[in-house]
Amino acid sequence: MQIARTIDDMKAARRRMRGRVGLVPTMGYLHEGHLVLARNSNRDNKFTVASIFVNPTQFGPKEDFAKYPRDPDRDCALLEREKVDVVFMPPGEEMYPPGFNTWVDVAGVTERLEGAIRPGHFRGVATVCNKLFNIVDPHRAYFGQKDAQQVVVIKKMAKDLNMNLEIVVVPTVRENDGLAMSSRNVYLSPDQRKAAAVLHQSLSLAREMWRNGERRAERMRQAMTGLIRKEPLAGPIDYLSIADAETLEELEEVERPAVVSLAVRFGPTRLIDNITLP
Amino acid sequence: MQIARTIDDMKAARRRMRGRVGLVPTMGYLHEGHLVLARNSNRDNKFTVASIFVNPTQFGPKEDFAKYPRDPDRDCALLEREKVDVVFMPPGEEMYPPGFNTWVDVAGVTERLEGAIRPGHFRGVATVCNKLFNIVDPHRAYFGQKDAQQVVVIKKMAKDLNMNLEIVVVPTVRENDGLAMSSRNVYLSPDQRKAAAVLHQSLSLAREMWRNGERRAERMRQAMTGLIRKEPLAGPIDYLSIADAETLEELEEVERPAVVSLAVRFGPTRLIDNITLP
Repeated sequence: MQIARTIDDMKAARRRMRGRVGLVPTMGYLHEGHLVLARNSNRDNKFTVASIFVNPTQFGPKEDFAKYPRDPDRDCALLEREKVDVVFMPPGEEMYPPGFNTWVDVAGVTERLEGAIRPGHFRGVATVCNKLFNIVDPHRAYFGQKDAQQVVVIKKMAKDLNMNLEIVVVPTVRENDGLAMSSRNVYLSPDQRKAAAVLHQSLSLAREMWRNGERRAERMRQAMTGLIRKEPLAGPIDYLSIADAETLEELEEVERPAVVSLAVRFGPTRLIDNITLP
Repeated sequence: MQIARTIDDMKAARRRMRGRVGLVPTMGYLHEGHLVLARNSNRDNKFTVASIFVNPTQFGPKEDFAKYPRDPDRDCALLEREKVDVVFMPPGEEMYPPGFNTWVDVAGVTERLEGAIRPGHFRGVATVCNKLFNIVDPHRAYFGQKDAQQVVVIKKMAKDLNMNLEIVVVPTVRENDGLAMSSRNVYLSPDQRKAAAVLHQSLSLAREMWRNGERRAERMRQAMTGLIRKEPLAGPIDYLSIADAETLEELEEVERPAVVSLAVRFGPTRLIDNITLP
């Protein structure tokens, strides 16, 4: 497995690849969710490139960029076991040299949900993915459904800018109690970790109501909110949304493909999760 | 010569090209300046693609999008004579379908000069070039030095986003009296057309002063302004700039590569021109 630390080295490694290339963009501190992306890429493509880059431009000034968990040695060992071909691990100044000032804005869908609470977040995400797509030039790029709005934003960018790659979305990987895997779960105390299972319970409740014929989104939101509020360690709720799967506009009636998504705080830690309906 | 009117057709034509590809992006109504770009591309590459697209997103609401001159039949005849391989001529809704909402912003250098007077102009230029670069996937793209700030913006975008192409800048082509060729020259009355030669005269005066050892930018600006003001049909002057060639920040002393640029109105028509120093 090759480790490329500069853009030039990564582009040189890419030029040597003859055959389909899959890209797995990550911020490192890998868990099973990331490894499933790499496995999907390996199955679909001749070569797999994984990137590890804690992207500063997608963090707000009061967010957890500095303390975001990092363990590159362990990450590389895990990726080597998955037979990843190249790990792209650039330092910050390689991706954002002095004077860097070009930004990709996916307007509209980024104003809601995570975008409303984290202004500039998706500008950072779209910009770094645009750069990674140009550097790695993959045939396919793999993203987890866990970050539902990110998936919508990246797909929209690729479509609007006529990019020559396929965005592949892989289902969320969960712990035994249903908690979505996330690098940020490491922030939780044991009690908070236990309490965090309520997120998936509330999403499952929405699915259950839908299966039983409920279509009124507000009824589903109320039931989910009630369940979360019963958990003393959960809250505040940043948002709890039942929205159109493509535009992320809130729905009154769940009569077309929808994303049920939420962001809830457990102490200082903010967790997100979602399911799609049907 | 093939004419591609859809993105799919253009991408299919591109896949059949084995060898270096040059792109000449234009808004049509071609003149010798465009044809020199095509000749440069043909000399450097195995294949040349020219695009003809009057890009609505780079025009302001009060600008000349609707009346911008168009003559696609003549354009295609000229390009065929230059042995261009493919002309990409998409209708507006092919490039900007309903719901399109992704934008590329090159910040900083777009706030000055043309960008200050035409807010949003360079966002439209950067976005459409980003799309064209993805659709045509050229090894090289050719732009005229005539649009000096556009050249700076496109180069900055390509660098910041790590694009895999070379931006080739071709010197401005001029009429016998020095007027820079432009599709908008057709708007000028015979008297205005004659008077417009003062633009190149004032740029030449700046070059002459520089050659004679003058380095104080303000002295050069004053001399240029004086010359233009003597021409009764010229004015108002939108800007007259002597700026750093890379950042476009105004200079006090011309001690490094500089762009001398100006925008002047002749009746309702706005003309731009520039030279580089040294």
